[in-house]
Amino acid sequence: MEQASVADSGKSSVWKAAVLSRDEQYDLKRKALIQEAARAFSARGYHDTSLVDVARELGVTKGALYYYVKSKQEILFECHMSSIELGDRAIEHARSIDGSGFDSVVALAHRYMELLVGESGPLAILTEFNALEPENRKIVAAGRTRFGNTFLELIERGQADGSVRGAINGKMAEFFYLGAVNWATRWFDAGGELDGSLVAAQFADLFAAAIRA
Amino acid sequence: MEQASVADSGKSSVWKAAVLSRDEQYDLKRKALIQEAARAFSARGYHDTSLVDVARELGVTKGALYYYVKSKQEILFECHMSSIELGDRAIEHARSIDGSGFDSVVALAHRYMELLVGESGPLAILTEFNALEPENRKIVAAGRTRFGNTFLELIERGQADGSVRGAINGKMAEFFYLGAVNWATRWFDAGGELDGSLVAAQFADLFAAAIRA
Repeated sequence: MEQASVADSGKSSVWKAAVLSRDEQYDLKRKALIQEAARAFSARGYHDTSLVDVARELGVTKGALYYYVKSKQEILFECHMSSIELGDRAIEHARSIDGSGFDSVVALAHRYMELLVGESGPLAILTEFNALEPENRKIVAAGRTRFGNTFLELIERGQADGSVRGAINGKMAEFFYLGAVNWATRWFDAGGELDGSLVAAQFADLFAAAIRA
Repeated sequence: MEQASVADSGKSSVWKAAVLSRDEQYDLKRKALIQEAARAFSARGYHDTSLVDVARELGVTKGALYYYVKSKQEILFECHMSSIELGDRAIEHARSIDGSGFDSVVALAHRYMELLVGESGPLAILTEFNALEPENRKIVAAGRTRFGNTFLELIERGQADGSVRGAINGKMAEFFYLGAVNWATRWFDAGGELDGSLVAAQFADLFAAAIRA
């Protein structure tokens, strides 16, 4: 595999798929399936859509579907965990910015939205937090707290260095922006007319203007 | 009743309740019950909370509960319709403003949030749109469209009169703000520490700064 990975640089993705191991192919297919399922749940409601509906929509047998996922809960949990992973990547990006608190928190806001509505997305059904089983909910809540705390920390750093308006309540600004973003996973359609990177740029621009000193 | 209504001005609400007709008392009790039920659904998830759970939480019998509401769907629908009614009141307020498009849309944004988290609220479970039955969903969607269109119209009026930034995509600004507001019905706790009118003022301030020319 090591040799194949080196050899395939510059080759088409078809070639790349041909040299993927069985495990890698399984993971890729599973990920694609979860994204499609999330889209179906998002469009018709998580609680009102069964895995059988999803299989029908994807044109696969129920058996094939169960080969990749055991339950709706698993899909829901994976979606939430993916969004947390994207959040961690956005945090890493924001931490790498050599600028004011304002620059950093706007970078965090922008990159997070960009990732959510980008190729790794659509990470829909993020609004279904209550539907998570208690154990899963705990894990997701911890990830969300990590992201929220970073967001707040950067706003407060901006207020300390004078780049963010002092009159703003940091927690409210955080809830304001993350609410807009969470809700966007309901209306943003990855296959639709809107360009995700333009939407993310608009969101970041509105947020930047809202908090700029 | 007419005479009683005149006579009771300035009297306590206990006296007022004593002179309410049977129908008025029923309506008042029903409204209070729907608000409490909405709060319970909001805290534990609409789909994971039964009417029996709600009755237990309110300390009433299941029979007493069914005297006021027939189903969870009825409560969900009423909550959505109340938010639309509050939206219409906010529109009326915004239309009465004699100012720029900016002034009007910020007034609309502010008043709507204020009403949602105010005494008439908490109108939680607004995020449960998919759970509405098709007929109810149509009615709610029409109300939402009316509010959204007014919001967009005022932003565009502001762009035409130079009071709102021209670079903003009106539809995105609308989705941005209403997303933040819809999401707030999940985290805002009417009995909690946060003062609703302060939250509404912060939201309106962030939105105003985001779109100001």
